Amino acid sequence: MKFETTTKSRFLDVRHQTEQICKSLKPEDVSIQPAEFVSPPKWHLAHTTWFFEQFILSEFQQNYNVFNDDFAYYFNSYYNNVGERVLRAERGLMTRPSLQEVLDYRTYVNEKLSEFIAKGITEEVSDIIEIGLQHEQQHQELLIYDIKYIFGNQPSFPVLDYNIDWQAEKEVQKFIRIPEGIYEIGHQGDDFCFDNELSRHKVYLHDYEISNRLVTNSEYIAFIEAGGYEDFNLWHAEGWDFIQDNDIKAPLYWHKADGKWMQYTLNGFVEVVGDLPVSHISFFEAFAFAQWKGMRLPTEFEWEVASNQFNYGQLWEWTNSAYLPYPNYTKVDGALGEYNGKFMVNQMVLRGASVATAIGHSRSTYRNFFHANLRWHFCGIRLAK
Amino acid sequence: MKFETTTKSRFLDVRHQTEQICKSLKPEDVSIQPAEFVSPPKWHLAHTTWFFEQFILSEFQQNYNVFNDDFAYYFNSYYNNVGERVLRAERGLMTRPSLQEVLDYRTYVNEKLSEFIAKGITEEVSDIIEIGLQHEQQHQELLIYDIKYIFGNQPSFPVLDYNIDWQAEKEVQKFIRIPEGIYEIGHQGDDFCFDNELSRHKVYLHDYEISNRLVTNSEYIAFIEAGGYEDFNLWHAEGWDFIQDNDIKAPLYWHKADGKWMQYTLNGFVEVVGDLPVSHISFFEAFAFAQWKGMRLPTEFEWEVASNQFNYGQLWEWTNSAYLPYPNYTKVDGALGEYNGKFMVNQMVLRGASVATAIGHSRSTYRNFFHANLRWHFCGIRLAK
Amino acid sequence: MKFETTTKSRFLDVRHQTEQICKSLKPEDVSIQPAEFVSPPKWHLAHTTWFFEQFILSEFQQNYNVFNDDFAYYFNSYYNNVGERVLRAERGLMTRPSLQEVLDYRTYVNEKLSEFIAKGITEEVSDIIEIGLQHEQQHQELLIYDIKYIFGNQPSFPVLDYNIDWQAEKEVQKFIRIPEGIYEIGHQGDDFCFDNELSRHKVYLHDYEISNRLVTNSEYIAFIEAGGYEDFNLWHAEGWDFIQDNDIKAPLYWHKADGKWMQYTLNGFVEVVGDLPVSHISFFEAFAFAQWKGMRLPTEFEWEVASNQFNYGQLWEWTNSAYLPYPNYTKVDGALGEYNGKFMVNQMVLRGASVATAIGHSRSTYRNFFHANLRWHFCGIRLAK
Amino acid sequence: MKFETTTKSRFLDVRHQTEQICKSLKPEDVSIQPAEFVSPPKWHLAHTTWFFEQFILSEFQQNYNVFNDDFAYYFNSYYNNVGERVLRAERGLMTRPSLQEVLDYRTYVNEKLSEFIAKGITEEVSDIIEIGLQHEQQHQELLIYDIKYIFGNQPSFPVLDYNIDWQAEKEVQKFIRIPEGIYEIGHQGDDFCFDNELSRHKVYLHDYEISNRLVTNSEYIAFIEAGGYEDFNLWHAEGWDFIQDNDIKAPLYWHKADGKWMQYTLNGFVEVVGDLPVSHISFFEAFAFAQWKGMRLPTEFEWEVASNQFNYGQLWEWTNSAYLPYPNYTKVDGALGEYNGKFMVNQMVLRGASVATAIGHSRSTYRNFFHANLRWHFCGIRLAK
Repeated sequence: MKFETTTKSRFLDVRHQTEQICKSLKPEDVSIQPAEFVSPPKWHLAHTTWFFEQFILSEFQQNYNVFNDDFAYYFNSYYNNVGERVLRAERGLMTRPSLQEVLDYRTYVNEKLSEFIAKGITEEVSDIIEIGLQHEQQHQELLIYDIKYIFGNQPSFPVLDYNIDWQAEKEVQKFIRIPEGIYEIGHQGDDFCFDNELSRHKVYLHDYEISNRLVTNSEYIAFIEAGGYEDFNLWHAEGWDFIQDNDIKAPLYWHKADGKWMQYTLNGFVEVVGDLPVSHISFFEAFAFAQWKGMRLPTEFEWEVASNQFNYGQLWEWTNSAYLPYPNYTKVDGALGEYNGKFMVNQMVLRGASVATAIGHSRSTYRNFFHANLRWHFCGIRLAK
Repeated sequence: MKFETTTKSRFLDVRHQTEQICKSLKPEDVSIQPAEFVSPPKWHLAHTTWFFEQFILSEFQQNYNVFNDDFAYYFNSYYNNVGERVLRAERGLMTRPSLQEVLDYRTYVNEKLSEFIAKGITEEVSDIIEIGLQHEQQHQELLIYDIKYIFGNQPSFPVLDYNIDWQAEKEVQKFIRIPEGIYEIGHQGDDFCFDNELSRHKVYLHDYEISNRLVTNSEYIAFIEAGGYEDFNLWHAEGWDFIQDNDIKAPLYWHKADGKWMQYTLNGFVEVVGDLPVSHISFFEAFAFAQWKGMRLPTEFEWEVASNQFNYGQLWEWTNSAYLPYPNYTKVDGALGEYNGKFMVNQMVLRGASVATAIGHSRSTYRNFFHANLRWHFCGIRLAK
Repeated sequence: MKFETTTKSRFLDVRHQTEQICKSLKPEDVSIQPAEFVSPPKWHLAHTTWFFEQFILSEFQQNYNVFNDDFAYYFNSYYNNVGERVLRAERGLMTRPSLQEVLDYRTYVNEKLSEFIAKGITEEVSDIIEIGLQHEQQHQELLIYDIKYIFGNQPSFPVLDYNIDWQAEKEVQKFIRIPEGIYEIGHQGDDFCFDNELSRHKVYLHDYEISNRLVTNSEYIAFIEAGGYEDFNLWHAEGWDFIQDNDIKAPLYWHKADGKWMQYTLNGFVEVVGDLPVSHISFFEAFAFAQWKGMRLPTEFEWEVASNQFNYGQLWEWTNSAYLPYPNYTKVDGALGEYNGKFMVNQMVLRGASVATAIGHSRSTYRNFFHANLRWHFCGIRLAK
Repeated sequence: MKFETTTKSRFLDVRHQTEQICKSLKPEDVSIQPAEFVSPPKWHLAHTTWFFEQFILSEFQQNYNVFNDDFAYYFNSYYNNVGERVLRAERGLMTRPSLQEVLDYRTYVNEKLSEFIAKGITEEVSDIIEIGLQHEQQHQELLIYDIKYIFGNQPSFPVLDYNIDWQAEKEVQKFIRIPEGIYEIGHQGDDFCFDNELSRHKVYLHDYEISNRLVTNSEYIAFIEAGGYEDFNLWHAEGWDFIQDNDIKAPLYWHKADGKWMQYTLNGFVEVVGDLPVSHISFFEAFAFAQWKGMRLPTEFEWEVASNQFNYGQLWEWTNSAYLPYPNYTKVDGALGEYNGKFMVNQMVLRGASVATAIGHSRSTYRNFFHANLRWHFCGIRLAK
């Protein structure tokens, strides 16, 4: 039994951060779902709250009164084990509850959980709270992606009042050489990690080289201008179909205006800056770019082994690894076990972190994953050979 | 040149009425588009305003400053002659401008138009203002349909604070007999009418009989319980496919709960009242019901000729007439000519009016029209034989 | 009781004609279904045969042995009253039974029905045989449409060995004037007609004029070259969407090659002949062409009343009438009642006949009907004003 | 320069085998395409022939006259480098050329290539001929899948006159234990292999166990009867959606009739035999089955390392490995380089071979691959833990 001031303070900090991201949103912005892979911001605000209510307060707090009986149905995401839920594709139909009601829900759960923590919690509860906070940090990042997508589809291109810093990829490109041999992969130690980072295990890597920095916008413009989007030899067959069917000729949010490449950013509609890292490209585009360079994307294992020799954290980095279980992977029983394992097919791994990642929510063994055609997340390219 | 106090007062009354309909909506409710045939309430509020700005102020008011240069693009509906516009299916992406900005837009245009009218207007301008008001009244009715659809798809079934009165269809059913002969159809006189009500012309009708009242919920429940939705002999081939493909077994908004028929109404989720007229049925269902009764739907001509012998106005009434031009129909030149003529294919005529129709926006020659599969509008069934 | 040599001889003649149409098809040609509105030729050959087996031999011939128990399931078209059937969209999956088996089926039923007729048949049976023959003649025409569609989608553009004669529309265009008044519409007399041509009834027509000939290819090319496909003011809203979504810029089977308009015909790939009537245009295109000419399409009533004053029969003529029941229309009980009535929504009427119509299968009261977007049938344009 | 009697004899043997597979097909069977992943048998017959014409005769034989100038367009599959082609989804529209013409094409190319070989060929040409033969053997297997799919969708369930032998999986199930360590993976030696089997490289494997035999129909029926298709905890999220959306409750070709599991096989419609290996299941189903057993699928590396300790060859075996390049994989330049590399995303690897695999076209390093939702190929399940 621990009396957790640090847990409580960390809990409130993370919760507060979510609201900070949304502080300049209007109520009109929070209920729409412009694409199936996007969730309305209001839904994120409520869903992350529901997680604590469902898995902590309703489970462990005696005589807890849920804020609203219907919210479990509205704001469950995909936990089949926890019952019926609003279908993902229909999240954008829910205009009610209002933003204010959802913020009240957050306040209510924050207070109840703070009281609950103050009375002392077990290790088990502490661990689930930590999962809830990690979960909320993941949704903070998704919130930023989704707000950008909602705003980027407004004809008026609004600005989000939230600070995001980009750094130029200024270093001269060098390739770090890693010698052939057995390496250890996966999380080690007692700190938090997701089940998909386990078990720590050995892999055999052959000699390879990996870039010290990300591909820049200038380099990507060179690819566009060299006809990269027109040369099928550079593309996977599915990638070629994808860019044809969707008429894709540049990263998401890019528009050519008066001969210049412009892009929507959360600071508005601005000219593309050459030495920032290129973002909002699908795995297919990352792969084609690497082909065009005569190189390739690293595997997630190559990335992890070399990761202490380069800087990362501006953009999630597409790897050429499919998202699959590690040796001796076991998923947790019950609802929390639905977190990772059931997505281990048809997705590609991304490594690193991005400017939209919560502080502290990052480590070299972290395995992010998305479908090869998605582009709305903050993702970039690191070359290998 | 007329100095039009009545025009100005009528203008402000109609405009005010639109805002009354929306007064209990939250900002969260106004931007979503749950189906392609629905428009977001905010869009209706802005589009009806744009109409006056585009066709009156920008045309006739010297040195008029448009409220916002981009609004013409955002809020044009389908007037190809007036330039590019946001696609119908993408209206639900626009979270900005906010509801408040749109209300400010309404205020601005109301003031400018009031000043403009006060200075005296020509007959031509007066006529276009009248079209704008008729147009806005049509959108008032669509607003009610669309709000009902948005609310009816909320898991929480909200209530709209707007008074809608329904009357029981209490009269004993009688059939009014109309003798064979030549009749005149279409609008007559100098009052406002739409181009599709002209020219007034002769038709030859054979003997027929038409009901003095609408079909009630009780009668429709009898049809459901007799297996009407399972007997293909009652249905058009396309109607049969429609109910199969969409798994339709009752009117829109109806749900069977604990053995009782319940329905969502703008007053909330309530039990179906037997002697109210049945609504929210497609043309296909209206037709099948009539077949089951051994009768038929009237043509729009039969309806118009007999309309002075029965009450109407609770629900638009599906006729068995396709929406086609009258003899010598001519559409107006330019953008306003896009109002009616281009929809004269693949739609069915409805006659009458509904409880959602603006007061005064109704006459026996009025031709409403919808696709045979639509059900979200306020529509009912009158039998003929 | 009649001993019907003429029935038998007519029966065999019509049946023989179906096989003549197919005589140059290879087995490879007869099983595919390149679009949902097309049926494989083999299916037509079998379905028309099934009609006689189902409605005559199985009903009226004692101890009749069906050729194959499964054929009723394979070759029923849409008669819900007669039981389960292969779905329309899946007709193209049936490679078995083979063409030869289907031809054997035809021979078997021809022999059995000939024997049956020879023994003397009642009026009722004679009437159903006549319906079967009319039905087969309709399928002969559909066969020609479908073969043309199958061949027109071959990269090798094959030729059908079947004689089809086209006449130039050589007459100087004149407009026949018809005075206002009451006219009678619909079939009269004891000859065969379909239920949709009844009852004969009165209509009131206003003054109108109708062209003595069809629109020619040259006239249609002028419309194309004047930008008719780019001017939305000429089109129904649905028509405009249809040509945009399907990238339609000319009639079906037309291709521009080396600056010349070429077209696939059943005689191969040839240059478009200017003074032949234009064909393979949707209702939308026919309407837009008429708008461009400042005229309109006739109603089916106008067409019928004037039809004794012009030549027709090269192409079915789109009218501006929706397909709806005549006053006092009643459909036959049972399966044969599914013939017409259930299609009376969302289709347009065509009048006349075409070069693909069986000889004798034509009269001025005949009501053909297709969806406004279809183009694979033999259809043309006659102007009115 | 070799004078290759063995090449010629092998060439004619392989070519003959393709025709043997098709010998009981009727012309009606060879042109349809019941699903996009199926190709018409006629297309396989021609495409494999085109390969030799395109890459050997047109390249290396002086003054070679192609059989038909259009065939390159008709029968190219996906080699973008070789020019325009009929789209995959439209292969089923081509009723011409007829089966006989395609067989004539085969004879022509066989003769020309035999003459060409007889004159002596270089190593380079010999290698391309070998690729063509391997390619044709792959199409032999696809032919069997596609014929089964075409026949399995006939209401008459035809029999293919082609001998396919199945063996009961009779051995008692045992698990072979493989110790942790470094293993070598990939093809070794001078024999033919595909580029995706290279380069031979090291992997590190942890301790694992792998079954000595495949999962049987009886075992799979136990999974069905235990509710395996209703328990989402067993499934990938995409797998769960896949079986829901397509209403899948058993392997492809299985039907429950009178309480018994029946299946379509190339020998007709028969009862499922309990101790034959289960086939026609998607990767999703294979995975769910393994989950239900508390085990897993092997990786392709685990499979390869253990493959000399069990029998395989009845069914391709789904592994839990995504199809990705080996270290130092390089694709060939030009059209032949389009063979494998461009499919290395979103597909799963299968190892082994099947009863439909050509004799000799099998080795332990062979990497087959299909999308996780496909079921029409001959595939089974081997468990690991």
